[in-house]
Amino acid sequence: MIDTDVVAEKSRQATEVLREQDVDAWLTFARETTEIADPCLPYVLGFDVVWPTVVLFTRDGDSHVILGRHDAPNAERLGVHEVHAYDESLREPLLDVLDATVPDEIAINYSKDVNTADGLTHGLYRRLVDLLDGTGYADRLVSAESVVGQLRGVKSPTERERVVAAAERTEALFEALAEAWDPSWSERAVSDWLHARMREEDLGSAWSWDYCPTVHHGGASEVGHTLPGDLTLPEGEVLHLDFGVRQDDYAADVQRLYFRGDRSDVPEELQSAFDDVRSAIETGKEALEPGVAGHEVDTAARERFLDLGRPEFMHGFGHQVGRRAHDGGTLLCPLWDRYGDAPRGTVRAGEIYTLELGVETEWGYVGLEEMVEVTADGAEYLVEPQRQFRTLSG
Amino acid sequence: MIDTDVVAEKSRQATEVLREQDVDAWLTFARETTEIADPCLPYVLGFDVVWPTVVLFTRDGDSHVILGRHDAPNAERLGVHEVHAYDESLREPLLDVLDATVPDEIAINYSKDVNTADGLTHGLYRRLVDLLDGTGYADRLVSAESVVGQLRGVKSPTERERVVAAAERTEALFEALAEAWDPSWSERAVSDWLHARMREEDLGSAWSWDYCPTVHHGGASEVGHTLPGDLTLPEGEVLHLDFGVRQDDYAADVQRLYFRGDRSDVPEELQSAFDDVRSAIETGKEALEPGVAGHEVDTAARERFLDLGRPEFMHGFGHQVGRRAHDGGTLLCPLWDRYGDAPRGTVRAGEIYTLELGVETEWGYVGLEEMVEVTADGAEYLVEPQRQFRTLSG
Repeated sequence: MIDTDVVAEKSRQATEVLREQDVDAWLTFARETTEIADPCLPYVLGFDVVWPTVVLFTRDGDSHVILGRHDAPNAERLGVHEVHAYDESLREPLLDVLDATVPDEIAINYSKDVNTADGLTHGLYRRLVDLLDGTGYADRLVSAESVVGQLRGVKSPTERERVVAAAERTEALFEALAEAWDPSWSERAVSDWLHARMREEDLGSAWSWDYCPTVHHGGASEVGHTLPGDLTLPEGEVLHLDFGVRQDDYAADVQRLYFRGDRSDVPEELQSAFDDVRSAIETGKEALEPGVAGHEVDTAARERFLDLGRPEFMHGFGHQVGRRAHDGGTLLCPLWDRYGDAPRGTVRAGEIYTLELGVETEWGYVGLEEMVEVTADGAEYLVEPQRQFRTLSG
Repeated sequence: MIDTDVVAEKSRQATEVLREQDVDAWLTFARETTEIADPCLPYVLGFDVVWPTVVLFTRDGDSHVILGRHDAPNAERLGVHEVHAYDESLREPLLDVLDATVPDEIAINYSKDVNTADGLTHGLYRRLVDLLDGTGYADRLVSAESVVGQLRGVKSPTERERVVAAAERTEALFEALAEAWDPSWSERAVSDWLHARMREEDLGSAWSWDYCPTVHHGGASEVGHTLPGDLTLPEGEVLHLDFGVRQDDYAADVQRLYFRGDRSDVPEELQSAFDDVRSAIETGKEALEPGVAGHEVDTAARERFLDLGRPEFMHGFGHQVGRRAHDGGTLLCPLWDRYGDAPRGTVRAGEIYTLELGVETEWGYVGLEEMVEVTADGAEYLVEPQRQFRTLSG
């Protein structure tokens, strides 16, 4: 079904973002969306199209969709945009709409750093330039990175509700797992158990199904984005899960830690690793507030962890969550080449982030990941953070 | 699970395609593949990655994957490519690999016309140009459209098997539907019944779930890519279905026609519409063979249909099927602006196409879509074509 609520809500927000950022027009260009689709489409259109399609917002508050005649009935039903149906080419209706607005700048969906704002393929970009040939508009194309970043990052009430609901479902599964867990289980069995619950409850995975959850059983498990393997969990070692469900198109992303044995048997060094991870996450959370740059939050957590005598973690401290587990826009990451400029982005109220880090120990990987929302003057956990090891018995 | 069979098979085929087309190197550049992913990745890698990742084939028969350390274990497990893991930037390992080959041309995944060959986003394109800055390689980037078109179009034995299996499962559901059908059913009920069977049998949809099947109940139904509605099927009218299942990652795409009533009650004019659609499809099929241009096949079917006194159909005659229902590469379409250059592509043996067209009548839309594979000297139906109306009783 078309998610009319979200499309209507985000389309209104799009106009506000254009005004706030002083952008004349925002153009999304797509085709054949079942194979590769601009991540902005679910926000501004909400249904698949076959023929080349443009969705155009202007600062005046107008929005237009120009699409093939066969795709048009869905656009009419959506009822959010002015609909322009074509039979052979979208050039003429597109130019008509642009000529009615004469934008100085047309923001389009490309970004070197932010994958969710980088939905325009290079071939379609060239095609757009061809379509605009001889009109002067081709020279006015700019990146919509900041438009998309704000639109996608700042959650509407409906979106926030859905992310919270996904986080709560994820927590409920973490809890149920502890009860069901059996010492005979391999990493794969842990994953299978969660997958079976998800199928029963009609839940999707926040990232690729096979890798969600990732499961690490003790010190012998290889850490990374790996498939769950055959290892069982030795007594006195740590089960680490990185997991999130996706429901109603919105995701959660959380890491949790379980110790096999009684809490009193947790080795001091292991408890100290847990405490240091918690402490660095808290320090990062304290640094998170509207107006700071993403990398400053990473630095706060990273320096705290180093000050505690821990090794540097070789990944970013946090990312946004929303429609996907990695939701793009501003990243709470170091200024490393692979993160591009995304860590220079400014944190905004209404955004939802993960805070995550960890350290390898002889008992297994000790990593936590919490979800927080940015408030007017700080950040709040979306659901209760993990404050001590869960225990597994048997 | 990683589809190692297909990745190994298509990776071997990729090297052959580079040699045949005299291309030095083919580079796929991706990141964060859960949100937007290059359609080539399932052929050359088969698992999701988080950090920027390059898969590079050379004409020498080498293949390399350069990826973030956390993603590397999957690449090692795949065992198809030489693996280069990095911590901060892929620039150095990428340049090392290129310097060992010194390709005159580097084909990358963009195409103005073929969406399956257009998986490189514009932002990643710019990032790639930056990565190659100062090396001279940036000036050697060319479109991999023809490489991807051939690789994806010409099916390996495993791929062909899977498409045939999907087509057979689709036919079985068409048959079961006729038995289960009840006159009280709305278009939505038809769709719900098929969806329930698909869930039971763990089948995916060949295109977006909500629009697969599309269902048209009689002359009052709006034709297009529309959601199934509340209409029931009047006696003496036509149920038209456009439908295909997807299993083991491969799809089918078929249109079928049902008449409510006895075959002897089919009005002469309606039968004549059916016969003319069949006839134009047969004419198109006869024109389909290795070496012809896609648009020539469209023209053969289109002219036949016009000769029979029918109105021109406002869509292409056929498209490829494989991993998706619309599988890109050469199209059997007219030289209309919206199809770009894809109809100029040359048909190859081993490709699988749909042949489809239809006409609106007072009893409903009369459209058929058949799946054929191109052989050494012609084309063969993948499954039995529809040669007469199926009937629905009640």
